[in-house]
Amino acid sequence: MTGATAKTLPVVMTENREARGPFLIVCEHASNHFPAAFGTLGLTPEARSAHIAWDPGAFNLARGLSKALDAPLVAANLSRLVYDLNRPPHAAGAMAERSEVYDIPGNADLAEAERLRRTEAIYLPFHAALHAEIARRLATGRPPVIVTVHSFTPVYFGQHRNVELGVIHDADPTFATAVLAEAKALTGLDCRMNEPYSAADGVTHTLRLQATPYGLHHVMLEIRNDLLADDLAVAAMTDGLAPVLAAALARIGAGTNRKAAI
Amino acid sequence: MTGATAKTLPVVMTENREARGPFLIVCEHASNHFPAAFGTLGLTPEARSAHIAWDPGAFNLARGLSKALDAPLVAANLSRLVYDLNRPPHAAGAMAERSEVYDIPGNADLAEAERLRRTEAIYLPFHAALHAEIARRLATGRPPVIVTVHSFTPVYFGQHRNVELGVIHDADPTFATAVLAEAKALTGLDCRMNEPYSAADGVTHTLRLQATPYGLHHVMLEIRNDLLADDLAVAAMTDGLAPVLAAALARIGAGTNRKAAI
Repeated sequence: MTGATAKTLPVVMTENREARGPFLIVCEHASNHFPAAFGTLGLTPEARSAHIAWDPGAFNLARGLSKALDAPLVAANLSRLVYDLNRPPHAAGAMAERSEVYDIPGNADLAEAERLRRTEAIYLPFHAALHAEIARRLATGRPPVIVTVHSFTPVYFGQHRNVELGVIHDADPTFATAVLAEAKALTGLDCRMNEPYSAADGVTHTLRLQATPYGLHHVMLEIRNDLLADDLAVAAMTDGLAPVLAAALARIGAGTNRKAAI
Repeated sequence: MTGATAKTLPVVMTENREARGPFLIVCEHASNHFPAAFGTLGLTPEARSAHIAWDPGAFNLARGLSKALDAPLVAANLSRLVYDLNRPPHAAGAMAERSEVYDIPGNADLAEAERLRRTEAIYLPFHAALHAEIARRLATGRPPVIVTVHSFTPVYFGQHRNVELGVIHDADPTFATAVLAEAKALTGLDCRMNEPYSAADGVTHTLRLQATPYGLHHVMLEIRNDLLADDLAVAAMTDGLAPVLAAALARIGAGTNRKAAI
């Protein structure tokens, strides 16, 4: 049932599907595309290009990491304001009425039928596609390490954020702890655990749905988006973070967290 | 991509899809059907009808509870020996080489390609169908209570089991605790928590994958299969357990565990 929808509306971009490396890269907020089927939600062009609509720079960084680490990449093809794929269907933030200082007119007082339509057209096919990539690797003895790639705005509600790299985890901190240690050792970034958000803020839905049930090692990377402002900056960040992920995996030893996976 | 497979091999039976009650019933081991695409795994007819192939009585009980509680039912349409839908693709038990005292010749030394084929043809479409039913209800403000229905053999490795009703939970024991209390109060069954199995034995995969990430209340019911031996026995068990589930829900108050769901 999800197949037909995915064909008519390509909500998922998958690259490097046959890659053989140990990581699987996810980018839920890759795009600020507003598909015709859902309209532009009453937003100005300025709002549609702001950080509320997507994570600027995150897709290019995710693609760079995918290439550098020989990892598949599963990315969304539409704005988080139509459906935020890192939120469950019953979360207010899945189809937010307001984001930071912006109202989202097209999400105000959404009818149940519209929430259902977006859930079936966007949420289910995206997570089915990601689930399929993970299950294929589990079935063939290659449990992937899940890395979700995000960016955040340097100024939020008027406050400047000092953190440059946020390292966030769901239930199991093992891999994130190793990533933080290697990022501090190998980069000059201001790196912090579970900043500017943490699982308690509901930002680890993808990890909770797709990594934690399988006991897969995982991390959510949050990069301040002024450090991803152009192609050169993204390339430098890719060159900085790919070795961090590889070193973190070497530090903990590869493979599934067997205790949780059974 | 799962849609085409699901059409050619109907691995899922969904009934009462438009039901309006608070429960969603799942029966992963409903059938001892061996689809032609996978053969009979070298098993005798006797082995194919034994408890290793399915949970005898579980489907009829699940269907009875679905009717009594106005709940959708999602059930598998093939033997657990082809793929055990309550196990992840990398678990040995997903395509078991041996089950209790039986060897499963068709599962011996499975090639990676065959593990992948069964994962894509069976595991992914079943869990996509269940995920869709859950997500539809979340999107429309009706978070379901997930009830998986199983049966177990009274004699296992030659040992008789006294427990008659096992009440099992994944991470959150809230609903299972209420079910156990109501079952003790309302039935004459020998009821026990996390017997004859528990999450530590890897038997809560469906709940871990589909209920826990959403903070949904859940329980796995394990009924000793000599108590489901014929239609009259199943009807009596249905009449006994439907009020237990309803009373347990009333006891805890309906709805999602908001703390975990965000």
